[in-house]
Amino acid sequence: MIQPNIPDTTQPRIVIVGGGFGGVNLAKQLRNAPVQVVLLDRNNYHLFQPLLYQVSTAGLEPDSIAFPLRGIFRKQKNLVFRMAEVTGVRNTENILETGIGEIHYDYLVFATGSNTNFFGNKNIEDNAIGMKSLIEAVQIRNYVVKQFEESLLLKDTEEIKSKLNFVMVGGGPTGVELAGAFAELRKYIMPKDYPSLPQDLMNVYLIEAGPKLLASFSEKTSQRTLEALQHIGVRVMTNTGVKEYDGKTVTLSTGEQIHTQSLLWSAGVKGIPVKGIPADIVLPNGRILVNELNQVKGYTNIYAIGDIAQMTNDSRFPKGYPMVAQVAIQQGKNVAHNIRLFLENKPMRGFTYKDLGSMATIGRNRAVAEFAGMRLSGYFAWIVWMVVHLMSLLGFRNKLVVFINWFYRYFTYERGTRIIIKRGAANIVKLRQSVNG
Amino acid sequence: MIQPNIPDTTQPRIVIVGGGFGGVNLAKQLRNAPVQVVLLDRNNYHLFQPLLYQVSTAGLEPDSIAFPLRGIFRKQKNLVFRMAEVTGVRNTENILETGIGEIHYDYLVFATGSNTNFFGNKNIEDNAIGMKSLIEAVQIRNYVVKQFEESLLLKDTEEIKSKLNFVMVGGGPTGVELAGAFAELRKYIMPKDYPSLPQDLMNVYLIEAGPKLLASFSEKTSQRTLEALQHIGVRVMTNTGVKEYDGKTVTLSTGEQIHTQSLLWSAGVKGIPVKGIPADIVLPNGRILVNELNQVKGYTNIYAIGDIAQMTNDSRFPKGYPMVAQVAIQQGKNVAHNIRLFLENKPMRGFTYKDLGSMATIGRNRAVAEFAGMRLSGYFAWIVWMVVHLMSLLGFRNKLVVFINWFYRYFTYERGTRIIIKRGAANIVKLRQSVNG
Repeated sequence: MIQPNIPDTTQPRIVIVGGGFGGVNLAKQLRNAPVQVVLLDRNNYHLFQPLLYQVSTAGLEPDSIAFPLRGIFRKQKNLVFRMAEVTGVRNTENILETGIGEIHYDYLVFATGSNTNFFGNKNIEDNAIGMKSLIEAVQIRNYVVKQFEESLLLKDTEEIKSKLNFVMVGGGPTGVELAGAFAELRKYIMPKDYPSLPQDLMNVYLIEAGPKLLASFSEKTSQRTLEALQHIGVRVMTNTGVKEYDGKTVTLSTGEQIHTQSLLWSAGVKGIPVKGIPADIVLPNGRILVNELNQVKGYTNIYAIGDIAQMTNDSRFPKGYPMVAQVAIQQGKNVAHNIRLFLENKPMRGFTYKDLGSMATIGRNRAVAEFAGMRLSGYFAWIVWMVVHLMSLLGFRNKLVVFINWFYRYFTYERGTRIIIKRGAANIVKLRQSVNG
Repeated sequence: MIQPNIPDTTQPRIVIVGGGFGGVNLAKQLRNAPVQVVLLDRNNYHLFQPLLYQVSTAGLEPDSIAFPLRGIFRKQKNLVFRMAEVTGVRNTENILETGIGEIHYDYLVFATGSNTNFFGNKNIEDNAIGMKSLIEAVQIRNYVVKQFEESLLLKDTEEIKSKLNFVMVGGGPTGVELAGAFAELRKYIMPKDYPSLPQDLMNVYLIEAGPKLLASFSEKTSQRTLEALQHIGVRVMTNTGVKEYDGKTVTLSTGEQIHTQSLLWSAGVKGIPVKGIPADIVLPNGRILVNELNQVKGYTNIYAIGDIAQMTNDSRFPKGYPMVAQVAIQQGKNVAHNIRLFLENKPMRGFTYKDLGSMATIGRNRAVAEFAGMRLSGYFAWIVWMVVHLMSLLGFRNKLVVFINWFYRYFTYERGTRIIIKRGAANIVKLRQSVNG
């Protein structure tokens, strides 16, 4: 019989659901606290989501942006990790229901992150491609390379265009970075790998419903981003929504239609819902209402942090904090700090967000960044972007492998991982059966 | 409509099926020949199979041992690559039937390699795990890490043992290297990642039907290999066959039974059959009879090279050459040379095999190697093994990434890629539909 097998303890048990930026930082900060930390995640690794778009576009190997959670917490004696899916909460009994059995908690922290938000459009959800997990990024890479290989087998120009039109929806950092990476693929890889395909058959579109790209940045930076993208050949459309997509043709709010088999959707995210949390404290975007201590409304021992948490204690962010890594990291640290204070019978401290700035890269040699009142763009911002991302990656091996890939790509204009890993071997079925059996 | 879209030419067209060691070397040697080379492979990459076992055991990322075929042949103007599956041959018309349409050939070369040979035992084939493709290796890695994670959820010692018994079948280089890598996992990773699992619950077995390991090596080297494996805790059983395996219990020819959910089969390979080749020139092991020019028996314009070819012109190898990379590489080069000679109306040259020696690594710091009449073992052989394999890897990026992984592993005893990449995202179905649609 499967059971969680978590060692009994007399110390308070803090169960953290999710090993993303919020959960990992919370758990780390509890290293020497007199508590037992139980970390659950459906995967056995922490994923560095900000570089997911480079996996999708064959710039990085998937393994280099994933770090085994057991490696991170190897030396943390008060932490138990289990790979598990949460199925529900019985909050009157302090019981978390999971795929590996029931787990009692004294404190429960949801740090489950977010998923792609298609805003209820079923057709788009069925046909567009989201990018929030490692396997999705790998599948996008496979899919994109396959579009090129299959284009070689066609004679009809319109059919080829439909394969080589890549449409990104959403002008936030993910959409901008993806569009830049696709433009690079066209400029540097396509002429070398597919010289028989005329370059003008491939088009990269970036569709944004609002009036400007990178809405959270200054007007000036948005404008620079727009110009930089146009310069490398991205067709940017602002004030333009997506009305419909059937897998072959996307219809825009302007009435314009684009034939494309690849609609990459990064127009929004929503919190991943958890069973057992009352529906009336969950917003339509999946976020759970929390107070300034990150306590879920109506509870004192259930917390939510990061993307999943809706906190409105800051007048700069009346609709809640942005769903970005920095908020999750800082909330995780604050909750850890508060748990320590509480155990020492000291008053807890409300969350205040320290905006460290934001940045986005736009293809090769160019990025935009805003922090500490400064606006950077161009080559220097790109160097800053690289250093910040390298330093934030967990693990020396990952840092080195990513650095080498970037170094190699910079000087060779190559992308080393443009391979299609196909399924279909007989093994797979066997292995999957055994895993479930 | 899908069609191969291969440019017409007045030069003879040589169609090569398979981008492994044989196919790639053949194609490269035809670089400046007055011919059109059409290279087909079901994948878009060349796979460095000798390091597959390190991907299976979380030592290397899959992308580092795969190299995009378009990258290899970017500068070879007389070569056309297409990703395609071969479905048949109409040899009277010189037509190759493929998934992307029919392709006319003047010369046809099969370099399709080999697949796992279960020698007709259906139960074993259904339940054991083979390891010949990249996706299989990734799935084995996922599966192995999952066995450990799931063991944490069990109380019953016998159940845990069944999950942590890893049985390799076949005492050739692959079996020896795999067993060594599993022994390393137990020694270095298990105590750190799973300290609550007693180490004696994990056992690594290596089963060999013949009287000695590494049958093609000298008696002395075999003995040293046996001792080295036993030293790092592998339970080696020679003169022992596998009679039956139902996915839970393996029954040996000695009557002994081992409970295991992981039987890794590397006891043999067989040529991958091709439709359209007369059955009477295909041996039970899938190899096609060829003459000393690698011409398929009964044909002058159809060749087979490497694992798929059965050539018996050397008294040292009365049953045909071993199914190893060196034979494929040398036959590929010889066929290329002969095609050039033929086009110049010169007599062709029969194949002679130059045995460059063989080697196998046995966990950390230890390997065995035999070449040029020398026998090496231990640390120095291990260094030689690493240098030879690094140098044989295609591409600077792959060399560097593999080197870093080895370097990192050597000093940290870590394995950076022990992550489980799960499927299940909604995207997958969509992407697969689009790919097929």
